[in-house]
Order: sequence, then C-alpha cells, then structure tokens
Amino acid sequence: MTTKMGQLYEGKAKRVYATDDEGRYIVEYKDDATAFNGAKRGTIAGKGVINNQMSNALFKLLESKGVRTHFLEQLSDRETLVRAVKIVPLEIIIRNVAAGSFSKRYGVEEGQELKCPTLEYSLKNDALNDPLINDSHILALGIATEKELDAIRTMAYKVNDVLKEFFAGIGVKLIDFKIEAGRLPDGEIILADEISPDTCRFWDAKTNEKLDKDRFRRDLGGVEEAYHEIFSRINQ
Amino acid sequence: MTTKMGQLYEGKAKRVYATDDEGRYIVEYKDDATAFNGAKRGTIAGKGVINNQMSNALFKLLESKGVRTHFLEQLSDRETLVRAVKIVPLEIIIRNVAAGSFSKRYGVEEGQELKCPTLEYSLKNDALNDPLINDSHILALGIATEKELDAIRTMAYKVNDVLKEFFAGIGVKLIDFKIEAGRLPDGEIILADEISPDTCRFWDAKTNEKLDKDRFRRDLGGVEEAYHEIFSRINQ
Repeated sequence: MTTKMGQLYEGKAKRVYATDDEGRYIVEYKDDATAFNGAKRGTIAGKGVINNQMSNALFKLLESKGVRTHFLEQLSDRETLVRAVKIVPLEIIIRNVAAGSFSKRYGVEEGQELKCPTLEYSLKNDALNDPLINDSHILALGIATEKELDAIRTMAYKVNDVLKEFFAGIGVKLIDFKIEAGRLPDGEIILADEISPDTCRFWDAKTNEKLDKDRFRRDLGGVEEAYHEIFSRINQ
Repeated sequence: MTTKMGQLYEGKAKRVYATDDEGRYIVEYKDDATAFNGAKRGTIAGKGVINNQMSNALFKLLESKGVRTHFLEQLSDRETLVRAVKIVPLEIIIRNVAAGSFSKRYGVEEGQELKCPTLEYSLKNDALNDPLINDSHILALGIATEKELDAIRTMAYKVNDVLKEFFAGIGVKLIDFKIEAGRLPDGEIILADEISPDTCRFWDAKTNEKLDKDRFRRDLGGVEEAYHEIFSRINQ
C-alpha cells in the first residue's frame, strides 16, 4: 500500500501528490474547469470522477495495444496511482477533423475532414499562451531530443489509431485530442496526463453533437450530461 | 528581348508583370516598406534598387552552388527577368539565432544562439496574419505535397549553408531569413521571391549592429545607410 504524501503540483484539473515510493505519484482529479488558458473558469459537477475513471479505462486499453502509460492502479473515484515521470513541457495534439483553434488559425471550417491526421506541439507556458512550436524549434531550444521526438510522434499516432477505432465502435468520432508525454528516470518516454472530455473532442457519429468540454467553453449547456453520456458509452 | 506586358500582381515591395513569353515574368522592386503585416508603412529611398541587385547577386551565388532559382537576367536598376512560377503560399523561415517573432513567441532573448538552425513555415494569408504552420498541417490541408516539402526543406537548409558562409566572409552574421518557393510548370520547386535586407536579419559580426529592415520596423534610424552598408559589403 502506497501512502499519499505532500502535494507536488496543482494544475487546472488535477493535483499531483508524492508518495512514500519515489517512483510513484498519486493523481487526484478535480471538478474545476478552465478554458482559454484560464480566462474562463467554472465547475463541472462529477467531472473529476468521470475523467479519472475514463482516463484509466483508456490507458488500460492503450497498454493492451502496446502503448506504455503512467497508469498503475485506481485508488478511489478521484485518485489514481501513476508512475512518477518528468513531463515533457509540450502539449501533443493530434487532429483528424478541423475544429477549435486549428479552424480559427487557418480559416478552415469546423468539421472539415483533414487529408491526413496532423500532429502539432504547443509549448506548455501559460505566460506565453502555449505557443505552437515545431520539431526544429524544440531541438534548437533543447526542449526534447530527436530520439524523444521520434518516440513522441510514434506514440501519438498509435494513440490516435487505437482511440479512433475504439470510439468509432461506440458511435463517437474522435475529432482531436491532446496528450502529454513523461520521461521515466531511465529516459523512456511514456504516455502521461489524462485522456478525457477535457482533452479530446468527441462528436456523436450520427448527430455531430459535441460530447466534450466545448459544451463548457462555448456555453452550449448540457455539460454534465455530455460527460455522463460519453462515460456511459465507454462502459457499455 | 522580352516585352513587358500587364501587371499580374502588386505586393508590398514588388510588382510582377507578364511578358510576351508565358514562361517569363518581370519583377519590379519598389521603395515601399511595410512591417507588422502592413500595420506600419513607409518608404526607404533607394531600397528597390539595392534589393533588386542584391537579390540577383545572391541568386547567382546560389545557382553556382547548385540551388535552382527563378533568376534569369537583370533588366534595369529595379527590374529583373525571372522564370514564371506559381508561388507555394508559405513563408519559409530559417533561423540561426533567436530574434524577432521567435524571441517573442518563445520568451527567448534576442541574440541567443540556437542549438541548430530552425525551419518554420507561415501560411501566406494576410487576413489570418500569416500563422505558423507545420508539415503535417500543410499536408492535411493540401497546400503542398510531401515531395514538395522535402524539396523545400533541402533547398532552405542549403540556402542557409551557402549564405551563412558568404556573409561570414564579409563580416556579417546571418541571423535569420525568409524565402519563398515557386513551382515550375513541370512541378519542380525552385527558389523565388527575393533575398535582401527586407527578408533577412543581418548583424555586423563585430558590433551586432543591425543592417536590415529591423532598423525600419523598430525606428532605429539609419535605415537607408544600413541598406547601403550591406550592399557595399556584398560588392566588395
């Protein structure tokens, strides 16, 4: 049994705690919701419970398909034991369909299928507003090595393949998603952070109804219901 | 002798004319200067004459090193005959040292050496403010093919190698530059547009004095003098 120790970090949607094992952290999911780099704030009742369980279910699925993740064991409704990693300070974003900031940035209508999935990085830096950054910038600034970028790229596209197929099977289009990568002490890159309606765009395959945080970002109503709907489909 | 026909296009710093040969255009360099996507406007006396001749000299140098360019023949102080190409709508930017928008975007001090040269693309679209775009976005939106991106990447790094060495020889650091690529009717990618103090950052190797359009952008004074200084060094 691992014992929860002091808080290491509080993010917008999670807290991370040390444990008595230096190779293990405990992640605790909050109901807090933010958007637009913290400019919009609120609470989505029950979100932490759903995101914790949904992330864990998807991490288990990905592990079964050969993607190494930080997931170890769910401890409670909101708490999960994970491998201690150092997060690579990049948001790793895969897109299958134009939406959100991509649509705005390139003047492409939301919902337009892309000719191929895209992979982009944002530098995790709130003060700089998480700017888009490319492979050569990352290398030139020493943010990650070429070997790490190769591992991240392979992982990101593999996660997309696995999740796209999985969500198609429960009547959901995976529009885009954001993941994060962590470094283990031996330098291996594994999947960290979470996979949830906070970090993905999910559209109902028939109606295109949004089942993700865009309902909160855009004041579309039915926020809690959307989180419950996607969660119940995963648990079918 | 090729005859100048109707104007095809007027850009911020140049006009492009058709000729009686559909494979040839005439480019005419203006003294107009703009910055910040047209938000700042002015005139730099004699700029068109300098940029025309400087670009041509550098294009000839690059041709001699195996880079195919649109340059054919200088017709007058401000006019040059070039191969007719369709411009790939990307600004192709190589950086050796942090400066300008890169420094601002990533919070890196201007003048910081980069661990390796970076290559980035901006989508040429004034209404969207020329947003940064990466390889996967370019492919997903059908802006260029994988083969074209390979050719552009190879060309851009080659241009950097040739120019960095050339400018080092005349006491100038090549901080960064922007080039454009054109498609010939057979699909070949060649270097187009211009290479001048409008499109490069040049710093004196000893004093770090700016010898480029940043003197105009940042109201540093001595704008015309800087254009003359860099031009005279090239003609040593």
